[in-house]
Amino acid sequence: MIIKKVVELLESDQVLQEYKVNGWVRAFRSNRFIALNDGSCLENLQCVVDFKNTDDQVLRKVTTGAAISVSGTLKESEGKGQSVELEVKSINILGEAHPEEVKKTILQPKKHSFEKLREQAHLRVRTNTFGAIMRVRSKLSFAVHQYFNDNGFFYVNTPIVTGSDAEGAGEMFKVTNLDLKDPPKTKDGEIDYSQDFFGKETNLTVSGQLEAETYAMGLGKVYTFGPTFRAENSNTTRHLAEFWMIEPEVAFCDLKGNIDLAEDFIQQVLKYITEHCKSDLEFLENRLLEEEKSKPEKDRSPMPLREKIDFVLKNNFKRVSYTEAIDILRNSKPNKKKKFSYIIKEWGADLQSEHERYLVEKHFECPVVIYDYPADIKAFYMRLNDDGKTVRAMDVLFPGIGEIAGGSQREERYDVLLSKMREIGIDEKELWWYLDTRKFGTCVHSGFGLGFERLVLFATGMSNIRDVIPYPRSPQNAEF
Amino acid sequence: MIIKKVVELLESDQVLQEYKVNGWVRAFRSNRFIALNDGSCLENLQCVVDFKNTDDQVLRKVTTGAAISVSGTLKESEGKGQSVELEVKSINILGEAHPEEVKKTILQPKKHSFEKLREQAHLRVRTNTFGAIMRVRSKLSFAVHQYFNDNGFFYVNTPIVTGSDAEGAGEMFKVTNLDLKDPPKTKDGEIDYSQDFFGKETNLTVSGQLEAETYAMGLGKVYTFGPTFRAENSNTTRHLAEFWMIEPEVAFCDLKGNIDLAEDFIQQVLKYITEHCKSDLEFLENRLLEEEKSKPEKDRSPMPLREKIDFVLKNNFKRVSYTEAIDILRNSKPNKKKKFSYIIKEWGADLQSEHERYLVEKHFECPVVIYDYPADIKAFYMRLNDDGKTVRAMDVLFPGIGEIAGGSQREERYDVLLSKMREIGIDEKELWWYLDTRKFGTCVHSGFGLGFERLVLFATGMSNIRDVIPYPRSPQNAEF
Repeated sequence: MIIKKVVELLESDQVLQEYKVNGWVRAFRSNRFIALNDGSCLENLQCVVDFKNTDDQVLRKVTTGAAISVSGTLKESEGKGQSVELEVKSINILGEAHPEEVKKTILQPKKHSFEKLREQAHLRVRTNTFGAIMRVRSKLSFAVHQYFNDNGFFYVNTPIVTGSDAEGAGEMFKVTNLDLKDPPKTKDGEIDYSQDFFGKETNLTVSGQLEAETYAMGLGKVYTFGPTFRAENSNTTRHLAEFWMIEPEVAFCDLKGNIDLAEDFIQQVLKYITEHCKSDLEFLENRLLEEEKSKPEKDRSPMPLREKIDFVLKNNFKRVSYTEAIDILRNSKPNKKKKFSYIIKEWGADLQSEHERYLVEKHFECPVVIYDYPADIKAFYMRLNDDGKTVRAMDVLFPGIGEIAGGSQREERYDVLLSKMREIGIDEKELWWYLDTRKFGTCVHSGFGLGFERLVLFATGMSNIRDVIPYPRSPQNAEF
Repeated sequence: MIIKKVVELLESDQVLQEYKVNGWVRAFRSNRFIALNDGSCLENLQCVVDFKNTDDQVLRKVTTGAAISVSGTLKESEGKGQSVELEVKSINILGEAHPEEVKKTILQPKKHSFEKLREQAHLRVRTNTFGAIMRVRSKLSFAVHQYFNDNGFFYVNTPIVTGSDAEGAGEMFKVTNLDLKDPPKTKDGEIDYSQDFFGKETNLTVSGQLEAETYAMGLGKVYTFGPTFRAENSNTTRHLAEFWMIEPEVAFCDLKGNIDLAEDFIQQVLKYITEHCKSDLEFLENRLLEEEKSKPEKDRSPMPLREKIDFVLKNNFKRVSYTEAIDILRNSKPNKKKKFSYIIKEWGADLQSEHERYLVEKHFECPVVIYDYPADIKAFYMRLNDDGKTVRAMDVLFPGIGEIAGGSQREERYDVLLSKMREIGIDEKELWWYLDTRKFGTCVHSGFGLGFERLVLFATGMSNIRDVIPYPRSPQNAEF
């Protein structure tokens, strides 16, 4: 007998053929209709049981959560909601799920809070919502790789364990093999890292950018897509201690080219999921509409999910300089009426989340790219403009998400980079290899980092970043 | 003017058109021929300079390693080795590379040892060999994602920081945020991990399998492709402390299906690079032939690189049970003549690298899959056979590489798994979520792990695993 996935049968027009399907019971009603799901798609296969001719012992084990194997004939469905159904000839119980045990879990078919689902993160992927999220996440990942591969980029795996703590993007986790109870010490009483596994102090990477730059100087166009880490005690719905980041880096590319790339990239990967995740996105859209019913109207999303995605992929991102943005904010109502927690007084102020959201959600009502930030509030490796006070940085801001990507044209001038490093106290001996890229055939180059989970948040309409990664890592939480 | 990549121009037939190309000078001979490389492919673009009409100051800066921008007309080439060349109208020096400085580096065009190249891993990607390796690595990665996406698998990002130390695949690195010089302690004098970032002891993952299993139980077919870690002090040409692993996990799939998947997967991704990395593979093949000239004939590869890849993707892998393999080994010449370091005496012995290589390289002369290993030498989660002494494990062995993948059908029976865990002392409270997968709709399922760098080794014909990842991590080495 031919074994098929549910998604294959639902898309099939090979009715009257015999098939076998394996999956998990989502529901069994009237002792007749099994809703069978195998994860291949959101939809269940309706399996119609001839209960008179089926062993009662077997039927009793067809309960929510059980794994079963069903054989039968594919037929056009008379019921609503599906085009085909399986007329069951035999049922094989593979793995039971005792109703009393199921009741204690989120497999029990009723509404569970996201908190509860997180506590059972190993089971939540069996719900419609998390199945949909994780399929969208997977398809988005593939779209990322396909976009870069199609556009002449090479994938680079930059190191996760890094001996450098100069990446400057945030607090780092230590990686060690030493006995913490009795670590070896030097004569001066310091930890003797020469006895550690790597012979030096090592951390988890916060960004692969610096290493990616060295590779862009050889391969031209590269990108990373891997886990990065922040040991920051921020218990928010927007931050994870472990998250996946996408970092393209392009030689011979200036800031404008970098913004163009970010815009095109984001639009193309979102386009991919609108084409490949139709029913999952529809489900997530309806879930969000349902959830927002209980909210006051002003807090609801201005557009349904799919319309919002469409809007982003069909409209240009608004590009404004930091200086223009500051002017808009200074003259904005919430600033004048002191509604912002941080009042914008003068040029040079760092933008807070509330300001970014105002620009994106109230003022422009579309994704916004802010560029040419004050040098003082940005990283050491960003290209200094001729004005001597701004750098060729850019942030991509998204409605409901805030900063989704940040990048810059890099400082390609050896002397300028070196003096900047000295100014802020980065040991040039530690980054000798990074400086070398400016010594041998340096060139204008640019890149950005995009937090993958924030993109998934946007694409799924979820509101907590812990719900778009299988096993979230955050302060006080490394379960599973 | 249209800006093009070298690979686009070399594949172009748009001669007599004007183009601009950015890249790095690989060589400049006779003050006339610039070999320009931009990393987009192995080949250089020959740029023909009209030196009489070019500023001498500019020409003097066209040195190996310099970044330049060249504009001119694409012409059919009269010289050998290329179909087109660029007749240069203008040269713009973007970044110089002083010959005196270049001489100190591996950019100097002469033969450098791999050791030396490793010490300058930030520059080695600018050499032909490492450019080729890293392009092949990138294309192989893409082939992996494409294979799984095309075959209905969902990509799952399992956690890198894990609170579990029961994965059992090897020594782990600790991840911590505590002050190592003065860590908080409990009353009993133990490290007080409740004060650590995650509120518990955490490590870097050695495998995403257990978490992937939970996802296979919801999405059906999943795979991971991410970094994994081993804190093992093995300074060999086959081991890294940080490496990328591919781990598919499939519900409703038994050991045979698992072996079928491994074989098809490996063949398809290798096929992809034979189609998409033609010149890089040709170059790597010739490099290997050249390298092996200095070796005694018996130590040379039996086939040139591309023939070896072709052989693997056109021939079935030989499948033998552990019991058959032991019989072959026991009766083999090297065993009888005591040439093996570990003499195979009886059933139950663990296979060493020398035995695996004998089976693959001498006895079968093709990739070999060994299955049904003794339970005692394999992991706790593997499905016990009805004989009570073997488990449904499999290892895929490759010529010149040894074990390239290992996997199993998983023990899906709750009671059997639990008693096995108790037997070997794994805390069931720690893996409660893993046990849960056997409680709610358990089913036959299988998966394997494939060390990505070993596949890259095989595909590139390189012999040291540190040369197929950008920045290798190994004992006493976390530079860059």
